[in-house]
Amino acid sequence: MDNKYKTIIITLPVNEQQMAKFDECAGCGRVFYVPQEDLTEELVAEASVIIGWAAPSMIRASEKLELLQLFSAGADAFVAPGILSENTVLCNATGAYGKAVAEHAFALTLMLMKKLYLYRDAQVTGSWTDFGPVTSPGGATVLIAGLGDIGLYYARLMKSMGAYVIGVKRRQYEKPEEVDELVLTGEIDKVLPRADIIMSVLPGTDETRHFYTKERFSLMKKSALFINCGRGNAVESEVLLSALRNGEIAAAAIDVAEQEPLPAESPLWSQENLIITPHVAGSYHLPDIMEGIVGIACENLRHWAGDRQYRNVVDKKSGYKK
Amino acid sequence: MDNKYKTIIITLPVNEQQMAKFDECAGCGRVFYVPQEDLTEELVAEASVIIGWAAPSMIRASEKLELLQLFSAGADAFVAPGILSENTVLCNATGAYGKAVAEHAFALTLMLMKKLYLYRDAQVTGSWTDFGPVTSPGGATVLIAGLGDIGLYYARLMKSMGAYVIGVKRRQYEKPEEVDELVLTGEIDKVLPRADIIMSVLPGTDETRHFYTKERFSLMKKSALFINCGRGNAVESEVLLSALRNGEIAAAAIDVAEQEPLPAESPLWSQENLIITPHVAGSYHLPDIMEGIVGIACENLRHWAGDRQYRNVVDKKSGYKK
Repeated sequence: MDNKYKTIIITLPVNEQQMAKFDECAGCGRVFYVPQEDLTEELVAEASVIIGWAAPSMIRASEKLELLQLFSAGADAFVAPGILSENTVLCNATGAYGKAVAEHAFALTLMLMKKLYLYRDAQVTGSWTDFGPVTSPGGATVLIAGLGDIGLYYARLMKSMGAYVIGVKRRQYEKPEEVDELVLTGEIDKVLPRADIIMSVLPGTDETRHFYTKERFSLMKKSALFINCGRGNAVESEVLLSALRNGEIAAAAIDVAEQEPLPAESPLWSQENLIITPHVAGSYHLPDIMEGIVGIACENLRHWAGDRQYRNVVDKKSGYKK
Repeated sequence: MDNKYKTIIITLPVNEQQMAKFDECAGCGRVFYVPQEDLTEELVAEASVIIGWAAPSMIRASEKLELLQLFSAGADAFVAPGILSENTVLCNATGAYGKAVAEHAFALTLMLMKKLYLYRDAQVTGSWTDFGPVTSPGGATVLIAGLGDIGLYYARLMKSMGAYVIGVKRRQYEKPEEVDELVLTGEIDKVLPRADIIMSVLPGTDETRHFYTKERFSLMKKSALFINCGRGNAVESEVLLSALRNGEIAAAAIDVAEQEPLPAESPLWSQENLIITPHVAGSYHLPDIMEGIVGIACENLRHWAGDRQYRNVVDKKSGYKK
């Protein structure tokens, strides 16, 4: 079938300028803008390209679907067997989130270091109370697990305030200039005891599920701060809670939870030395994000209409970008 | 009288290493370490040098007091007529607070930009709620009122995240490299409408009292964020409250209040879009601060024993460092 008869569904809430960009690179396909919540199985079954998101249950391994360009960096929901047909190339939006998520994680880090969550809690009770010593990124040792664009951006922010950065990466490669030291994920236990701050942006894969075990928390400094802006299932709620309650670490901040939304009855909510934000670091809350996604998606639409040498292809076995 | 018979009172809670530094540079004077709360009028009346702090009411214009080296940058309580005799040189600790206060102000700024105070409030109620768009220092215009060491340190932090910085300074001097633009305090009304963030570290002087008037808040963007880490009397509580309630600015964070401690019944406490910390940015909460104060004080003790060409002398008329 000629591309011009094929259906391209875009679920991203784009503005007119961004629509114009898509029009330029759609390569003759018929483009439909459908809000994610209005998608139906019939619409999805017609699509040769979906840009944004569609429920895995709706895709039903459609043979027609040639390209699924996700709005997200995480692709874990789509790599399970039976979701996508062999014909479908899965691409993620790695690269669009670096600034937004790193800045959110950075703000959480400083909020922890300067005890601003305690001051906010005291404010609500009208209490002019001094919570004592604080810390500074200057001279702190920061361990960053996951050195994609988010991890590297965060590394730059922390280094600009004088931190020493240890990067943790799954595969061996050359040390990027953003970090002072590089270790493999398998060697993380050797460096955990040195870290004042552990910032995790590990993606959701089989390997990273429940990565931060009770044993790993016990290797951390009692003064350590733990930040998770990757995937919630990297740490079991009970394990995190127990580390915080038993003083194995000083405090934590999470933008992700094992179960999302985090149930109202979860004891995590009321844990004083834990800051929770509801998976908002990587939403469309900074204009940079949508611009980044549209850029990647346009590039891949051009590849679809042309050489099919896509950018950001996800390996359906590992769940990682190839 | 020979210096060796003179009394030096140090009220700083110093450690042994810092004591050793003082011993090295005390120049034969008799050094007494007296915690601030244990000072008496009798002790103060004996002192030729006080390092740290003494209640203005205890000093009673003592003719004996040759040097009062404050632990603070602010010296407003000591410049009123009748507090210090003509014989007393007043020095402040400008320079010791740059990093600590600037980092605190920076953390407050990011907490405001990323709406982390709203997320903390929602957390307490167990609510997984998305508060929508956030902003980034990247591309933001930041106005910094007061370009001492705190203001310049904060300027560097904001610029490292991509902000455009306008510095506001009382006296004409060459534009420091930390800022993109420099205006005089008298011209601030011209630049207020351009600022996304207004960070104030103005000292407490007659000129800066109630500096941020109702009219000045009305010149600010409705989306502006206001941060005060200088002196509380730079803005009247009612004026700030009304600007926040009427949406003349989006949100604010203050480490200082007109009356400290802020009374429990103040309506500021419960203003949702205001973050309050209880004048802790410049406490001894980072080791850097005490190190900085001890450094300045030792230098001035050496000058006292020698050339009397002191560093950080405060002009008793203007309240500013000369």
